[in-house]
Amino acid sequence: MRRRITILGATGSIGRSTADVVLADAGRFEVAAVVGGRDARALAGVARRLGARFAALAHDGGGAELRSELSGSGIACGAGAGAVLEAAARDADVVVAGISGTAGLAPTYAALKPGRRIALANKESLVCAGQAFMANARRLGAEILPVDSEHNALYQALGAGRAEDVVSMTLTASGGPFRTWPREKIAAATPAQAAAHPVWSMGSKINIDSASLMNKGLELIEAHHLFGLRADQLDVLVHPQSIVHGLVHWRDGSVTAGLGVPDMKIPIAHSLSFEARLTPPVRALDLAAIGSLTFEPADEERFPCLALAKQALQEGGAAPTILNGANEVAVEAFMAGRIGFFDIARLVEATCDASAARHRDAPATVEDALEIDRDARRIARARLPQAASASP
Amino acid sequence: MRRRITILGATGSIGRSTADVVLADAGRFEVAAVVGGRDARALAGVARRLGARFAALAHDGGGAELRSELSGSGIACGAGAGAVLEAAARDADVVVAGISGTAGLAPTYAALKPGRRIALANKESLVCAGQAFMANARRLGAEILPVDSEHNALYQALGAGRAEDVVSMTLTASGGPFRTWPREKIAAATPAQAAAHPVWSMGSKINIDSASLMNKGLELIEAHHLFGLRADQLDVLVHPQSIVHGLVHWRDGSVTAGLGVPDMKIPIAHSLSFEARLTPPVRALDLAAIGSLTFEPADEERFPCLALAKQALQEGGAAPTILNGANEVAVEAFMAGRIGFFDIARLVEATCDASAARHRDAPATVEDALEIDRDARRIARARLPQAASASP
Repeated sequence: MRRRITILGATGSIGRSTADVVLADAGRFEVAAVVGGRDARALAGVARRLGARFAALAHDGGGAELRSELSGSGIACGAGAGAVLEAAARDADVVVAGISGTAGLAPTYAALKPGRRIALANKESLVCAGQAFMANARRLGAEILPVDSEHNALYQALGAGRAEDVVSMTLTASGGPFRTWPREKIAAATPAQAAAHPVWSMGSKINIDSASLMNKGLELIEAHHLFGLRADQLDVLVHPQSIVHGLVHWRDGSVTAGLGVPDMKIPIAHSLSFEARLTPPVRALDLAAIGSLTFEPADEERFPCLALAKQALQEGGAAPTILNGANEVAVEAFMAGRIGFFDIARLVEATCDASAARHRDAPATVEDALEIDRDARRIARARLPQAASASP
Repeated sequence: MRRRITILGATGSIGRSTADVVLADAGRFEVAAVVGGRDARALAGVARRLGARFAALAHDGGGAELRSELSGSGIACGAGAGAVLEAAARDADVVVAGISGTAGLAPTYAALKPGRRIALANKESLVCAGQAFMANARRLGAEILPVDSEHNALYQALGAGRAEDVVSMTLTASGGPFRTWPREKIAAATPAQAAAHPVWSMGSKINIDSASLMNKGLELIEAHHLFGLRADQLDVLVHPQSIVHGLVHWRDGSVTAGLGVPDMKIPIAHSLSFEARLTPPVRALDLAAIGSLTFEPADEERFPCLALAKQALQEGGAAPTILNGANEVAVEAFMAGRIGFFDIARLVEATCDASAARHRDAPATVEDALEIDRDARRIARARLPQAASASP
């Protein structure tokens, strides 16, 4: 039985890995739709390679180029927000939600359908609107299967027991490029230094989040929504080799861990398997060759973004949405050379403080989440000059 | 709902840990029976402590002492093989099979009953008579839950997926006291040096098996029967910290591992939990405090017993039964100072070669297994002088 798959964010990092996974087990899938952002040519390429039925480009102005690139292929296409939502809602057994950022919120929401699986890689669906997203998924009977290597590892490890017996979960972090740097050196870090991730190759914004450990903080918030654990049941462990991705601690002292070589094709393949697991083109894990796995506590003094994310998770309500919006602005300003590395945390903290009185409740809809997000970004942008003057 | 538990081997290492686990969650159990070997006083002590209904001592001659020790307690008792089998067959929801050695074979077999769980710690049930034991358990609908930390970890990790998707399993070994010793030094090792286990505190025979890695070889044979994997799907990895106990490798590159501090109370508690997991008195795992987990290949040149066990598993039939019987004789001779450390492997190999023609098929019953075992021991004993003269 062939499963119908739709890929949101088909031209991005998750989308390209998904295409590799699907092609390695091609007989098991048919591709209902692929969605891209601005690159009509890349989208047409992946649509042809996968034999998709429909291709949608988010960028309105790219419609003509997409049609021309797909001419003769028999693949239907469209452009603009409407076309993207149409692609997300098309009949499919599984939708890979791989659009990054708040741009992924509405399409991922639109993909929630009864009995359907969402292979979830869009962090914002959980970070900015987690309560609403999970409640909607439950109400509709949609299955959420996480694609992040950490959450996917935890999801698999949870199979070893009953949710009621989970004491806590640990997400590992590579520690990023500044893991061993003293605070003064981190304060003077350049965008290029922050973007050099030691293990994973990713987009540049997420590389900065990885360097600040904000990425791990956001993952704690995701884990809270995915697995229903409290803030005090979730923790981070720095593990530079990125082989152990997550650990579930059970009430009897047993611990179940999810491991694998750092390759997104593994969790993607897991999230796309219905009965038999897939066979993606990945290296096998060879622990004897790796030799040593090391673990150390995360240092919240040198990585204040992690502490801020934990605090937002603890507070709940609108705090994670505000944190995320403020962080987007701060990272952008850091990458543009306008503020220093520690200003990211300072700006996020100041924005969270300033926004707390304006937004208390968790957003009940995507629209609410986007409004809080816009407000947080506005407040953060207004504070940019002050943050810059305080640096480093 | 209180579960009825019977403990075979209640005065041994597994039995004492089981008592600690049961007492920590006392409201959840009633103790149907406890079985001991020769120590009437220790057995009476554990029977009183646990409020057991019945106590059976294997040693015929200890009956009077047991009766006297239990007088006034209201605990019924008996001595001799019949009493042990009576205890094993008594009504219970779970039987901890913790008698070590071939002495545990018949009582463990007798404990197999429809709908009952066996928390299995007696290696010989699987090593000497694995086919017959597992077939009988399946036929009767008895559940086998392994207590060994490695197999228990693998059993839990298997929950992360479907058996059909397992590519292979890895059992870890501490590497024993000779892990870093050169071959010449191992050749001259004394029984006291071999008995010094770096992580686990166990009985002395199993410590020697741990030093020779025969113990890990026997565990591969157990894993074959428990999990239905072929010899080439099972391997050993040396991991001196003994934190990761076993790893399941899935077809999609995911790996699920079972971890925990080295404490038998953890797998025992897991094997005794029916719905909610128990809360044994154990330390939590703190990977940041441990810092580093290391892994290295097992060296079959310096640890030839591991190679011999793998070969016996590969051959199947009666080979594992013969291997185990020969090893018992060899370890005893080594502990008595009659042969050198490498003579253990030499004697086992010679016995396997000499017995192969006499016994081919896997034993179909416990009686068959015990007969092959006796024959292997006889052949091994007859070869002892030659082995001794070849040493070191």
